[in-house]
Amino acid sequence: MRKEHDFLGEVPVPDDVYYGVQTVRAIENFHITGSRLDGDFIRSMALVKQAAAMANMKSGRMPKKIGQALLQAADEIVSGEWLDQFPVDPIQGGAGTSVNMNMNEVLCNRALEILGQPKGRYDLISPNNHANMAQSTNDVFPTSMKVCLLMKGRKLSRVLQELELELLAKEDAFKDVLKMGRTHLQDAVPVTLGQEMGAYASAVHRGRERIERSLSGLHLINLGGTAVGTGLNAEPDYIRSVAEELAARTGEPFRTASNLMDMTSNTDSFADVSCAMKCIALVLIKMANDIRLMASGPRCGLNELKLPARQPGSSIMPGKINPVMAEVLDQACYQVIGNDLAITLAVENGQFELNVMEPVMAYNLFRSLECLTNASRAFVTHLLKGLEANDSQCQYWVDHSVGVITALLPHIGYEKAAFLAREAYDSHRPVRDIVREHHILTDAQIEHFLSPWSMTHPGITGEGEDTLPISG
Amino acid sequence: MRKEHDFLGEVPVPDDVYYGVQTVRAIENFHITGSRLDGDFIRSMALVKQAAAMANMKSGRMPKKIGQALLQAADEIVSGEWLDQFPVDPIQGGAGTSVNMNMNEVLCNRALEILGQPKGRYDLISPNNHANMAQSTNDVFPTSMKVCLLMKGRKLSRVLQELELELLAKEDAFKDVLKMGRTHLQDAVPVTLGQEMGAYASAVHRGRERIERSLSGLHLINLGGTAVGTGLNAEPDYIRSVAEELAARTGEPFRTASNLMDMTSNTDSFADVSCAMKCIALVLIKMANDIRLMASGPRCGLNELKLPARQPGSSIMPGKINPVMAEVLDQACYQVIGNDLAITLAVENGQFELNVMEPVMAYNLFRSLECLTNASRAFVTHLLKGLEANDSQCQYWVDHSVGVITALLPHIGYEKAAFLAREAYDSHRPVRDIVREHHILTDAQIEHFLSPWSMTHPGITGEGEDTLPISG
Amino acid sequence: MRKEHDFLGEVPVPDDVYYGVQTVRAIENFHITGSRLDGDFIRSMALVKQAAAMANMKSGRMPKKIGQALLQAADEIVSGEWLDQFPVDPIQGGAGTSVNMNMNEVLCNRALEILGQPKGRYDLISPNNHANMAQSTNDVFPTSMKVCLLMKGRKLSRVLQELELELLAKEDAFKDVLKMGRTHLQDAVPVTLGQEMGAYASAVHRGRERIERSLSGLHLINLGGTAVGTGLNAEPDYIRSVAEELAARTGEPFRTASNLMDMTSNTDSFADVSCAMKCIALVLIKMANDIRLMASGPRCGLNELKLPARQPGSSIMPGKINPVMAEVLDQACYQVIGNDLAITLAVENGQFELNVMEPVMAYNLFRSLECLTNASRAFVTHLLKGLEANDSQCQYWVDHSVGVITALLPHIGYEKAAFLAREAYDSHRPVRDIVREHHILTDAQIEHFLSPWSMTHPGITGEGEDTLPISG
Amino acid sequence: MRKEHDFLGEVPVPDDVYYGVQTVRAIENFHITGSRLDGDFIRSMALVKQAAAMANMKSGRMPKKIGQALLQAADEIVSGEWLDQFPVDPIQGGAGTSVNMNMNEVLCNRALEILGQPKGRYDLISPNNHANMAQSTNDVFPTSMKVCLLMKGRKLSRVLQELELELLAKEDAFKDVLKMGRTHLQDAVPVTLGQEMGAYASAVHRGRERIERSLSGLHLINLGGTAVGTGLNAEPDYIRSVAEELAARTGEPFRTASNLMDMTSNTDSFADVSCAMKCIALVLIKMANDIRLMASGPRCGLNELKLPARQPGSSIMPGKINPVMAEVLDQACYQVIGNDLAITLAVENGQFELNVMEPVMAYNLFRSLECLTNASRAFVTHLLKGLEANDSQCQYWVDHSVGVITALLPHIGYEKAAFLAREAYDSHRPVRDIVREHHILTDAQIEHFLSPWSMTHPGITGEGEDTLPISG
Repeated sequence: MRKEHDFLGEVPVPDDVYYGVQTVRAIENFHITGSRLDGDFIRSMALVKQAAAMANMKSGRMPKKIGQALLQAADEIVSGEWLDQFPVDPIQGGAGTSVNMNMNEVLCNRALEILGQPKGRYDLISPNNHANMAQSTNDVFPTSMKVCLLMKGRKLSRVLQELELELLAKEDAFKDVLKMGRTHLQDAVPVTLGQEMGAYASAVHRGRERIERSLSGLHLINLGGTAVGTGLNAEPDYIRSVAEELAARTGEPFRTASNLMDMTSNTDSFADVSCAMKCIALVLIKMANDIRLMASGPRCGLNELKLPARQPGSSIMPGKINPVMAEVLDQACYQVIGNDLAITLAVENGQFELNVMEPVMAYNLFRSLECLTNASRAFVTHLLKGLEANDSQCQYWVDHSVGVITALLPHIGYEKAAFLAREAYDSHRPVRDIVREHHILTDAQIEHFLSPWSMTHPGITGEGEDTLPISG
Repeated sequence: MRKEHDFLGEVPVPDDVYYGVQTVRAIENFHITGSRLDGDFIRSMALVKQAAAMANMKSGRMPKKIGQALLQAADEIVSGEWLDQFPVDPIQGGAGTSVNMNMNEVLCNRALEILGQPKGRYDLISPNNHANMAQSTNDVFPTSMKVCLLMKGRKLSRVLQELELELLAKEDAFKDVLKMGRTHLQDAVPVTLGQEMGAYASAVHRGRERIERSLSGLHLINLGGTAVGTGLNAEPDYIRSVAEELAARTGEPFRTASNLMDMTSNTDSFADVSCAMKCIALVLIKMANDIRLMASGPRCGLNELKLPARQPGSSIMPGKINPVMAEVLDQACYQVIGNDLAITLAVENGQFELNVMEPVMAYNLFRSLECLTNASRAFVTHLLKGLEANDSQCQYWVDHSVGVITALLPHIGYEKAAFLAREAYDSHRPVRDIVREHHILTDAQIEHFLSPWSMTHPGITGEGEDTLPISG
Repeated sequence: MRKEHDFLGEVPVPDDVYYGVQTVRAIENFHITGSRLDGDFIRSMALVKQAAAMANMKSGRMPKKIGQALLQAADEIVSGEWLDQFPVDPIQGGAGTSVNMNMNEVLCNRALEILGQPKGRYDLISPNNHANMAQSTNDVFPTSMKVCLLMKGRKLSRVLQELELELLAKEDAFKDVLKMGRTHLQDAVPVTLGQEMGAYASAVHRGRERIERSLSGLHLINLGGTAVGTGLNAEPDYIRSVAEELAARTGEPFRTASNLMDMTSNTDSFADVSCAMKCIALVLIKMANDIRLMASGPRCGLNELKLPARQPGSSIMPGKINPVMAEVLDQACYQVIGNDLAITLAVENGQFELNVMEPVMAYNLFRSLECLTNASRAFVTHLLKGLEANDSQCQYWVDHSVGVITALLPHIGYEKAAFLAREAYDSHRPVRDIVREHHILTDAQIEHFLSPWSMTHPGITGEGEDTLPISG
Repeated sequence: MRKEHDFLGEVPVPDDVYYGVQTVRAIENFHITGSRLDGDFIRSMALVKQAAAMANMKSGRMPKKIGQALLQAADEIVSGEWLDQFPVDPIQGGAGTSVNMNMNEVLCNRALEILGQPKGRYDLISPNNHANMAQSTNDVFPTSMKVCLLMKGRKLSRVLQELELELLAKEDAFKDVLKMGRTHLQDAVPVTLGQEMGAYASAVHRGRERIERSLSGLHLINLGGTAVGTGLNAEPDYIRSVAEELAARTGEPFRTASNLMDMTSNTDSFADVSCAMKCIALVLIKMANDIRLMASGPRCGLNELKLPARQPGSSIMPGKINPVMAEVLDQACYQVIGNDLAITLAVENGQFELNVMEPVMAYNLFRSLECLTNASRAFVTHLLKGLEANDSQCQYWVDHSVGVITALLPHIGYEKAAFLAREAYDSHRPVRDIVREHHILTDAQIEHFLSPWSMTHPGITGEGEDTLPISG
């Protein structure tokens, strides 16, 4: 054990660890979730520390030798080393000071080691004066969150793109599968299964755009603002260059916010990212639920889709297969929506120059992104790629439906159509027969109006074609 | 126009209105929702004012003549008069001071009129000194909320009881309707439609108990605590008797909280009522959704239930009928859950001796109760009472299902059963035939194990009967 | 009473009303909220009906005479007439069919009247065949929602702009008011009150951009898609022109969605608008809460701001003034966040070709917009415009603070600074004196580093100036 | 690697693991949160399996030797062994089938080992036929959730009791610390710091009762109901005894629900537990926020409380101490409220005979309980036990306040009191002096009415004492 101290006193620290006194205090203070910090977040903060060290070296304030050692230590963390040296709980008081100091301590102790010095020699390299030079938790923490959110967000975006592409592939594959459209869960008019897949794809596309748009809002950072956004203790040169350094290291076009005080005290940009996830989650739930409904049965349900069998569905009911990949996507989405509320409450509770609830925001944002990415990827891989249509069952429903009568509305009027529809329902007979019996339309007209293609593509195929005179 | 003043200055007030200067200020300050105060709430506050006036008369502080006039004025409000004299917006700043003063002003001006005095003669009867004697908005407002919540809550409870009774009636009516049970929307094992109705009834019963339980928490009031719960300016005799007076007037066993400060600053009892509504809402959504699914079709869905036709289902699709009463119940429940979040945020934001967000709590609690009561009643009247089973369709599904094989599990083991189930699915043939072919069980055994009754009531009917030796 | 019928039978309708049989059924079915439909929404739907009538006339399907009468009837509704003819409850089953048919019936009966015919002669002008020609509730209802949301959304946006401008005015007015910055509610380092106002302005600006952005998403409409987005029963010419007609009438660049099926079944664009409102609500809550804190006191709080006295603050505590306009803004924002959850649940529950929960979405979206607009406007008018700084109190706090020592960090290091800070806290003495005693810096340095301007604008004023050599 | 198979085919399983084919499938299917199953939950399910094995042995269906081996295997798990054999992700599709089968496989393979047989010999001891005998995931999973929730819930309850006791200790310790009461963050009337602590204690007590009450709802279990609550495949003897067996093993009075179908398909009891946590979370947030406000400063805030210094408060601001333990409690509570929404959505989405979303409910319920327990304990240990009052500052605020004038209201009326209050505010002078000058009351009266004790305990101390005649 070595002894370390801060202005509250001396604390023993295990000799072999790279963190120091403040991390030890944090471990004692915060045992809340029992989880560990997100690895991408640790890497992101190391990138921020690198950018700061570079900018401080350029401004001349950071001694070269110290700066180089800190850069190397940070490099190691970025590449995945020392992740076990970050034991603080993700939900913590102090607005992330414990994470920031954990990072500062690990950087310093590793830098000291690199320079051949023993750990704890903070008189040589100091967590506060060097690793944290020209910085405050209040600019480092949210900026690191943004780096991490962009990292994870891009991954989510790519997975959503795969989902969209797979749905488009299914739109094509199922373009000739005529099926019954349903509104209110009641038989409506025919559509194709391909059209449904295309509608999901279109909504996923829109959802992904919202994700991307919300991520763009994270490029505005408050690094350089230090404690309250005034930039106190940061060199003007540092402030001017640090965002550029971070951009260079991350490939994301970070830039210093014009109002650093706003960017330090308001966290609505985090709420915005969470909202974008909520919106796509709602789209995914609807899609997953439709698929669960269409795959219902196989004997006593709609039975329009065949899902890949991923696992025996029941510990008691032999031969049962359940739509487990759609169910898990639903649940991941509920989690995202629940996390959004935790984030909402945290964002609500900013006060004056800071929102001290950033740790719980970070925790939930990271988990939402992970959850949504994993569940979407699993859905594509384990469900969508193997999805098959049950064409004959789809056709069976259409053939027996009454709703097709809607297509006759422009030709015979709503009232007469409704009358014939009721007759069909009551007599349990096909619509075509009923219409024929009433001698309202010729057989050719009936065939034309009730053809699958003209019912599902009336607006498109009608173009340039002769259409029958309309009586309505 | 008459002139009235408060310590901020003079304000013109229309001559014919019973409210006064502070109400006029509130009208100008708060135009937020555009809605009016809830009528039950106004009546509830009048009841509280009566209780306070009585207790003040008994303690000797309130002059008899003034007290009598105030009591009469309050009586008129309780019986539904003067509701048009309460123009303040339900969402308001000031923790309800504007509602309380609106009430105090109307009471005084009506009392003055009763005593043959002109409106505005607050030197004779004063809104603050008489109508508000020994009171503060901080005890009057939440106590009035509680009176109103009990009023509306009892109504909801009665409607939920009607719902439960009607579900029990359906349990009986449908007790012989065998149908396919479904888990994961996949065919499981048979149940009866009556059993499903009974399960809804049982859950509704539990939900209603939660409502009642949360309402009981409202009997503890802080009336007598005045501004911060210390009872400053209230006579001990008043404090001792005011809850009893209120109980006598409302039939609800109100009693003074032992910790008045807690009861003034903490509003968790309101959150509790909202949570109880959320819990029953979740039960109702599940029931409504099941019914929508069972009524799906009629040709291309499950078609197990026939709902009363309440209105043409579509402006374009002739003959279509939709499950509109189930849909509106769902939506009312979403509203209740949304309102619960508004309430949650308000309850979260108490500070020190008061939670100034009570008006938005009251607004949402009242609307949730109304919405839930109305939608539940409409569901009973317009859907449940006319609900019919489609017995033959229910039977059809069971006859074609494979899941019944589960009943053979104790006799042939999971593995063999799963093997036979897959064979049935793949060959599109009935389970009974497959089992018979494999000569594992005798025909009598098959009939016994797969009989509807023994499959749906195994645990109960088994008692006392001989059961076959189990091989497992 | 006149008799009207639909395919469910005959219903008596009062002779003097313009609505008809389906509206009467809806009144009986849906008594849920007890509120009336939003006036802007009725006007919006009339605009949609006009666009449809025009497009149908152009395509040649709608007879001129009928079309003209319908257009005139719709014109009257747009200009505010007949709003009392829309008695259906905003929360309703049937996905808005009742609102759509209410509109169709009023239009037809008024058009009949214009043409000198008696109400109810639907054989001449039919709600379904003419007023609803080439339409379905499923495209008319969401499109009307979008028209209405844009109408109300633009109004909100204008009010938020006023708020931003007023905050910028305050940024300027308070630019020399030095005050203590606070993080964690603990003394941090000085800022100016103007900077704080500027930070609010900046966040409000961003929030308004999100509103505008989400509104743009509403320009994509599914009008022309009819029942399920396939455009069944709509002329290609109609589909091609109807969005343009609507754009011409509203001044909003509506265009037909390329995937009409997606636009009919997915309602994420409504969730997006609600999320944008939630985000700005969070910004407003933070601002309102800061102002409540700064105005706390006046004797026993921070007392940094003087708010306009809007009303006596208490029914019992004489002379008390409360920050009622900030409190009501908070509550309006809680309502918006609660409504967002109701909307979230509704959007979650789409199924197949439609989301039947649109009515509850519309209800909450409209109320959120109204609430937020009204509360923001009241905040600007009744609080912000009259807001005054208590300069001397602000200065008092700064003069007594210890946090200013942070400005010495680059010059004396964190450890020494922390040591001096603790000494100041423990001895209850000013930081300047302590620093001076320790002879670490010259008096000129102390004055320079601790000058208000250099502490609050270090990053900016530092440019081009000589700065002291840094020891760190 | 050994080979195992289920009805979907053969899968290689690492030789050294105790789980089997279905667990391997689940690992591949569900990589969602990246977290592991809760240890208490695994232990709880093992207890359920023990109860089932015992009941099956008693009913005679389970062979003794197999039963004994399974019991021993389960014992080992209960005592904490083999927790590393449960690799499935807590958020999973299939309603928990993967957890149940993971348990069944581990039990069987360990039982086989105990009996000297190689792993995988399911022909001897079968996961489905023996470990899962007379059970279904649909009764085992929710019952295990209940066992675990009671385990964790009792722990939370004990911590909340410690919190309440510590608050009561502080009520006593601070009973003579007079301080300014505040409503609307504005000076109201005096209270004691002890009274405030007592109010928190009282609210915490109520919150704990709600937790206990909701936990009682979990004693009703559906074990014995098997797949859909009909008890199919379970012996009547088994059904009659299994709850008793579980009660004996857990010390919790479990009993079989009278409506097993309700208890299998409705999950409102889980929502109820979550709601109870939300209610206490709201109480804790209010308390934590009050403490943060009272500890604000130390120089530029209220400065009424001194919190234990747990860690340096800032990486940049030397000497700063932040209320980190209150901040982390807030955040834990936000997490609980967010989790409640995820649970709400899951409970909402039950269908027919099951709610397949139970895994995400379990995940969030367990985490909420852990989070709340840990944060509350940390708050007691690291903040409350060391909490000190800053008596002199508290007294200072009271001495300078104007709100004390409220105590004169019964004696001089609201109007005159308001007049004097404004004079005090405008002249920046003490209320006592102003009152004295106006010669309205004698010095003795002033002393009496404005004495700290009579202002903070009027209702109580007034009893039996002479009180001055009241003029009002």
